Amino acid sequence: MSTSASLRPRVVIVIGAGAGIGAHAGRRFACAGYHVAFVRRANEAGLDALVASVSPPGSASGHLLNVAADGALEALISHIEADVGTIEVCIFNVGAQIGDRSLEQTSLKAFELGWRLACFGLFRVARVLLPHMQRRGRGALLVTSATASVRGNAGQVSHAAAMAGRRAVCQSLNAEFAASGVHVAHVIVDGPVDAPDTLGKMLGAERFEQLRQKQPERLVSPAAVADAFFFLAEQPRTGFTFELDLRSCTETAWWNSANGVKAML
Amino acid sequence: MSTSASLRPRVVIVIGAGAGIGAHAGRRFACAGYHVAFVRRANEAGLDALVASVSPPGSASGHLLNVAADGALEALISHIEADVGTIEVCIFNVGAQIGDRSLEQTSLKAFELGWRLACFGLFRVARVLLPHMQRRGRGALLVTSATASVRGNAGQVSHAAAMAGRRAVCQSLNAEFAASGVHVAHVIVDGPVDAPDTLGKMLGAERFEQLRQKQPERLVSPAAVADAFFFLAEQPRTGFTFELDLRSCTETAWWNSANGVKAML
Amino acid sequence: MSTSASLRPRVVIVIGAGAGIGAHAGRRFACAGYHVAFVRRANEAGLDALVASVSPPGSASGHLLNVAADGALEALISHIEADVGTIEVCIFNVGAQIGDRSLEQTSLKAFELGWRLACFGLFRVARVLLPHMQRRGRGALLVTSATASVRGNAGQVSHAAAMAGRRAVCQSLNAEFAASGVHVAHVIVDGPVDAPDTLGKMLGAERFEQLRQKQPERLVSPAAVADAFFFLAEQPRTGFTFELDLRSCTETAWWNSANGVKAML
Amino acid sequence: MSTSASLRPRVVIVIGAGAGIGAHAGRRFACAGYHVAFVRRANEAGLDALVASVSPPGSASGHLLNVAADGALEALISHIEADVGTIEVCIFNVGAQIGDRSLEQTSLKAFELGWRLACFGLFRVARVLLPHMQRRGRGALLVTSATASVRGNAGQVSHAAAMAGRRAVCQSLNAEFAASGVHVAHVIVDGPVDAPDTLGKMLGAERFEQLRQKQPERLVSPAAVADAFFFLAEQPRTGFTFELDLRSCTETAWWNSANGVKAML
Repeated sequence: MSTSASLRPRVVIVIGAGAGIGAHAGRRFACAGYHVAFVRRANEAGLDALVASVSPPGSASGHLLNVAADGALEALISHIEADVGTIEVCIFNVGAQIGDRSLEQTSLKAFELGWRLACFGLFRVARVLLPHMQRRGRGALLVTSATASVRGNAGQVSHAAAMAGRRAVCQSLNAEFAASGVHVAHVIVDGPVDAPDTLGKMLGAERFEQLRQKQPERLVSPAAVADAFFFLAEQPRTGFTFELDLRSCTETAWWNSANGVKAML
Repeated sequence: MSTSASLRPRVVIVIGAGAGIGAHAGRRFACAGYHVAFVRRANEAGLDALVASVSPPGSASGHLLNVAADGALEALISHIEADVGTIEVCIFNVGAQIGDRSLEQTSLKAFELGWRLACFGLFRVARVLLPHMQRRGRGALLVTSATASVRGNAGQVSHAAAMAGRRAVCQSLNAEFAASGVHVAHVIVDGPVDAPDTLGKMLGAERFEQLRQKQPERLVSPAAVADAFFFLAEQPRTGFTFELDLRSCTETAWWNSANGVKAML
Repeated sequence: MSTSASLRPRVVIVIGAGAGIGAHAGRRFACAGYHVAFVRRANEAGLDALVASVSPPGSASGHLLNVAADGALEALISHIEADVGTIEVCIFNVGAQIGDRSLEQTSLKAFELGWRLACFGLFRVARVLLPHMQRRGRGALLVTSATASVRGNAGQVSHAAAMAGRRAVCQSLNAEFAASGVHVAHVIVDGPVDAPDTLGKMLGAERFEQLRQKQPERLVSPAAVADAFFFLAEQPRTGFTFELDLRSCTETAWWNSANGVKAML
Repeated sequence: MSTSASLRPRVVIVIGAGAGIGAHAGRRFACAGYHVAFVRRANEAGLDALVASVSPPGSASGHLLNVAADGALEALISHIEADVGTIEVCIFNVGAQIGDRSLEQTSLKAFELGWRLACFGLFRVARVLLPHMQRRGRGALLVTSATASVRGNAGQVSHAAAMAGRRAVCQSLNAEFAASGVHVAHVIVDGPVDAPDTLGKMLGAERFEQLRQKQPERLVSPAAVADAFFFLAEQPRTGFTFELDLRSCTETAWWNSANGVKAML
């Protein structure tokens, strides 16, 4: 005895859900009636708070998961598809920024882990999720990305290799799946984001707060990124965007600068 | 005795306003309360019909103008700023596609005209309009563009030269004006648009209608492009997008194909 | 009674021949037995000195020409093909850098002139020259280009628009003519060149000399650019390069910096 | 008592040495007096034949090595630096093309192996080799690459992810090491290569021979790629090229086509 498709909730799954882009994206989609499945690696209290921040109450769920663990991601997606609802949108928001590190400072292990999270993780999600979307002839896989996806830089060898690979995965998936009505998009966040879990941790609480006070227009608004994801998810199949960039107005675009987190550290 | 700023209407000016992207963009912004100033080179009857298609009635005006004529564009922008309202958004939608022409078939005159319309025209608009926007610390210059802006191709020497120059103008303006809160964006429409004035004329009425019937998912929806412009215009200054691409789901992205108008002729 | 083709000299024509890249390129090709036709706008004494600098004596000729003048370029190319020899290689080296100028400081006239020299000039050369090369099934059109061909920047609106258009012309010509055995290539000189006629004039003699003394590794060697042109001209048709970049080792690549002439002024 | 530096041979190490690009590159550098260290995974007889093909006799050595094995690459480079000579040039020529495979057909294992060979392998080489070159203030790391390094495509998800990551590694190394006089370059071979070990195996001997006979200008000449590597290795530090592309004249450039191996299978 199965639930009829029309009664199943539309689900957006946010993989890599912190207090910045992930949180805002979840809340944005919840406004439009989606159930939000937040997925993150650790910090159960933070995850609970995230779930509680979504209105209306009950429209979100939280899932702790190590993206790098064999089979875990696959099991979660299957579980949500079977028991929660139809994953109409997946926001892949797992980052791999490890700060500014020279080649010598970048261990084989760090390089591999960056790839395993940011590139291989996306590939694994796609392997499990896209066949569902293709069968239904709709769905969106929306990927947060970074400056490092379009250019390598000194100190960024690990991050750039992982993110450039990620972008190539997105392009390849787009080429294979777009004609089925499945929308794959790559969002280049070209500057530091106003997010306590990532930039906040890198800078330390005090410097982060100082920066937010003194240069509020320096940081990318996670709400603006969330709006971009929602815009992409709503596009009709006769007008799919594959890629867009996003930065704060005072941030020089990557093709005109050596900007990024490095300049702030 | 001047009108107070708050009573002046917000104006979107659509330069190169046909029945496709221009019309849809105008109507999309009118929904949000903008006055729409449609600008096109010829066809007064078409322009009147366009103006009449906007609701609520009275929210649009039409202006015939030869973009290539010295001073005409400049005079119009000054007139609108002085007498109609504040140009918050300018959509520069002048095209320069002349079909598939070999080097030999591309006259010096055709090459120059393409540049004069698509590249120099934008530069001239920017010279007059951006100082107003910069002074106000806000405003958006949104530019329709094409596959040819990112790659040259056989048969496209004139179009590609004009459009690549246009993209470079946009990048240069973005670098100079973004920090003032002025948003310059470049929208790559990567495929043929469902528009009677452009594709319709190139293919002829019959073939165009046939294509629309048989391959409705082959053509880019001008409404989707209009939505993209509106999304861009609404972005906060802490999350400006410079560039996005857009294509129908069955259209192969430019970096994977030899697509474009050429394939249809 | 015409000279047999095999006795006609192989000609390299260098359009935009100053004391930097143009001079070095001419001398490099003369070493390999080419006749060098140097073309420049003004300074007859400088042109004579340039011609005299090529060995063996008699292997170069000089031609004063205003590239922007109607028909002049066309007449010269026809003259060389008819009376001097076969143009196997054309190096298009006309620049359009006008320094760092804001939008306001960039007049309509300056913008148009930049395009007329750097973009339209190349198109006109191609219209006259490529049919000869296509008929022969061989030949090379090698184009000096700049950072501005791949990204706009503040202060560079005129230069970037002209150079991006130029790159699109090169791509379009490559797509149309490569299969005939005609090699079109675009060389991105990504940094200031050690050249008295261009950088020297921009900086002034004293600062230029100072820079050469104190930061000899900061400037691109025009001899290295000349070697790149020669390498390109020698490539077999089973291995044509369309694009390569070139910079001094201490210069940050354009995708990692805001470099270029601007930083030196 | 150590040999004086000036008597040590200059070594070029070719990692991923088959009968195509690797063999030609080795022979090209041997002409200029380098000792060539060929490195490949398997086929001792093929390796011996490769070594024997280099003149003068004795100027090459062969090394079997599994690039993916922990520590093996590192040990070999240390061995060559200690016992054979100074590695002036490293040509990283390991490929990861696995043919045209849909997402479903691409196993997690295949995706990981592609990355391990083509991207992680290069990173490991760089970790061991670049400190030597940096200490000496000279040296070149030259990387063979593919269309897939600049665009993903349907059927190419594994290859594109590995190669795009590889390109990002090259860009990051270039940004970190160029100023020390170490030259990192990325060579995009944009089309099928006339090579029995790779294309030959993919097509089968008969079809490969047929293709070579009927469309000799369709395949990239491995000798032309070898010349490009030699050109790059000889560039002075005042004119380093980071990237160049290469294709046969009848091959459409990647930005104008869906070309590549896929079209031939």
